[in-house]
Amino acid sequence: MFKVKILTVGKSREIWLKEALEEYEKRLSRILKLEWSIAKDRPQLIDLAKNETALIALDLQGELLSSEDFSQKFTLALIEKGARLTFIIGDADGFPDELLNRSFWRWSLSPLTFTHQMVRLILIEQIYRALEIEKKSGYHR
Amino acid sequence: MFKVKILTVGKSREIWLKEALEEYEKRLSRILKLEWSIAKDRPQLIDLAKNETALIALDLQGELLSSEDFSQKFTLALIEKGARLTFIIGDADGFPDELLNRSFWRWSLSPLTFTHQMVRLILIEQIYRALEIEKKSGYHR
Repeated sequence: MFKVKILTVGKSREIWLKEALEEYEKRLSRILKLEWSIAKDRPQLIDLAKNETALIALDLQGELLSSEDFSQKFTLALIEKGARLTFIIGDADGFPDELLNRSFWRWSLSPLTFTHQMVRLILIEQIYRALEIEKKSGYHR
Repeated sequence: MFKVKILTVGKSREIWLKEALEEYEKRLSRILKLEWSIAKDRPQLIDLAKNETALIALDLQGELLSSEDFSQKFTLALIEKGARLTFIIGDADGFPDELLNRSFWRWSLSPLTFTHQMVRLILIEQIYRALEIEKKSGYHR
């Protein structure tokens, strides 16, 4: 079972987001255990990341990838890092430098700025898509 | 009142998407009238676009923009095109050539592939964000 942790700041208040995330978590649950770790502020985010290795920073300045390239890079990283990865979503003030320096991969979803809520949804859908691409399931085409 | 039409293929089945879209439509409703036009297939999409001018193609091969650049380009286009724009979201087979040729702007949200449902949500949030950037409201920072 793969384990993916998502570290982020602030609760998700919207009900629609909760429903959308639950749908993808259910779809993923056979092969990947997703764990959310929600910090109340920036210092707590840094603290929660302290014991994590294999950090991936979701950073506007990071590398832009197609879904196919993300799939390759993500599945390779799962293998190289022992089936456990941690994605970090920064707050509105951008990404804390000390977490950036510890990340082995800086990934940008888009040059557009999204809400943190939407980043959670896009991230989980891309993780699902990445595994479907790997399985050649036809979900992605 | 600005008018923005969104042409796309296929119903949105997810309830969470409906709720999310409604929230942004409500926020936009003071200054912008949003109209959805949902085709059942590709030929109908082309047909629905027949009488539309000022077409913007959401196309994976299009131009990548920051939210600030989108805001500038979008508000300028609203002025130049007489306060009426039509965004077109293609189907899983990509964008019909004849609609691409008629579009004055080919815009890519990201090099990632998103579901059509998610494209609708990202688009409407970026339209809302663009107007907030223009108003310097502090929503975007």
